[in-house]
Amino acid sequence: MPIYIESRQNPRIKELLKLTKRRHRDERKLTVVEGDREVNRALKSGIVPVQAYLCKEHIQGNEAEEALQAVEALGASKACQLFHISVELYKKIAYREQSGGLLLLVPYISLKLADLSFVSPPFFVVIENVEKPGNLGAILRTADAAGVDGIIVTHSDPYPPTDVHNPNVIRSSLGTVFTVPMAQASTAQALKWLHENNIPIATTSPFSQVNYAEADYTGPIAISLGSEAEGLSDAWFKAATQQVVIPMHGIADSLNLSTSTAILLYEVVRQRSKA
Amino acid sequence: MPIYIESRQNPRIKELLKLTKRRHRDERKLTVVEGDREVNRALKSGIVPVQAYLCKEHIQGNEAEEALQAVEALGASKACQLFHISVELYKKIAYREQSGGLLLLVPYISLKLADLSFVSPPFFVVIENVEKPGNLGAILRTADAAGVDGIIVTHSDPYPPTDVHNPNVIRSSLGTVFTVPMAQASTAQALKWLHENNIPIATTSPFSQVNYAEADYTGPIAISLGSEAEGLSDAWFKAATQQVVIPMHGIADSLNLSTSTAILLYEVVRQRSKA
Repeated sequence: MPIYIESRQNPRIKELLKLTKRRHRDERKLTVVEGDREVNRALKSGIVPVQAYLCKEHIQGNEAEEALQAVEALGASKACQLFHISVELYKKIAYREQSGGLLLLVPYISLKLADLSFVSPPFFVVIENVEKPGNLGAILRTADAAGVDGIIVTHSDPYPPTDVHNPNVIRSSLGTVFTVPMAQASTAQALKWLHENNIPIATTSPFSQVNYAEADYTGPIAISLGSEAEGLSDAWFKAATQQVVIPMHGIADSLNLSTSTAILLYEVVRQRSKA
Repeated sequence: MPIYIESRQNPRIKELLKLTKRRHRDERKLTVVEGDREVNRALKSGIVPVQAYLCKEHIQGNEAEEALQAVEALGASKACQLFHISVELYKKIAYREQSGGLLLLVPYISLKLADLSFVSPPFFVVIENVEKPGNLGAILRTADAAGVDGIIVTHSDPYPPTDVHNPNVIRSSLGTVFTVPMAQASTAQALKWLHENNIPIATTSPFSQVNYAEADYTGPIAISLGSEAEGLSDAWFKAATQQVVIPMHGIADSLNLSTSTAILLYEVVRQRSKA
């Protein structure tokens, strides 16, 4: 019989609410997944939640039912603790409204570089010092669609590691954060790994003279982009074998990071589908 | 001597605050621009505001100073009424925090189809029934960068005309809404205009067998995309000369509308730069 919780003073609920803060997430290496689609994608990708919180009154529609069945199966097999919670309490713990009636507490998923694998020729995307969770989420959706081997999220001094497990990354990625292999590393580590694996780097720079579509991406490639504010750090340009630019015909700088990423990744896809 | 306002009960301020509602904007055919970059782009594109509200305490940085000078010049020439407002009141009328200290009241800018012009071969993007202002804004940024001749924002029954003058469109477009020619029309009108001007239509459909990159966009083209929820209405597919698909290698439907638009528009740019 699953446990029913209706008090915000319940120690589990207090712990869950603490996870809105990055410091607590990083300490416990746990984050929160909500939303029917996101929950389904997490479960389908093989993530086993530590705990699942259900509010049956909010579970509606096929996606939600599918997610509920999967969660209940995990609960029945004792793989995951299930808690039923009241409508009132759910309203307090849900990170956003209308997210459905399921909330999972899941272990951190980011990989080490050594855990990344690739088919030949490797196709990676590198995103350095991205700050907005929504941007990273949008890039994950595109990376998923483009079929990359993985995304490497890097940080260079003095930037802290990107908050890749922010619930807004999960949400804005529509759960593709669970399907695209994602490694987090310092820029130095990432450059070393790419070098060791003989994966050439293409960087984007507004100062490059080479149109991105004139470069050849049919071989191994790591498409690398920096934050909107700062661009890539110098180390990337030193290591790059290709520096390219996306031509802009209007006001300067009018493409955002996720748009630029999409244009580049799909140029790789285009060239490879013809090759 | 400019007028100084500090009361929220001032009739002009009451009118301004009413413009948060679409109904009032549409009645008066006026909308609000704030943000240093957005204000500058509006003014540089030749928009003459009906009124400008300044809060000098909030004006900081080069972009803001540039905007302030332009506004003061318009005020001096009597082209536009200037009002200075108090810090307290500005906080109440600004649509968002940290938007700078300038707020313009500007006339509606969308064009009629007949006002659109093009160089040969014409390159248009059509967006039907888009609902989220942020999506339209992101698409405008891409349309600007890709150098389209214009964007046609259409609606089909039973959808209402898109709220193209929503302040969030202006904001998320970073002001490119003022630089990309934008016409608003019903789908029937848009199809008629494209037909009369001999501009072939390319639609995107997940059911198409033709990879978007295999189609030819070097001639006249109107790239057409529908809302994320519904896609394009049937009339577009009936009129289309090309139906294409963006291949997705991960979870289905993982590209959003603005990403798909960027991939398609830059494929047009790519083909034309080689042609």
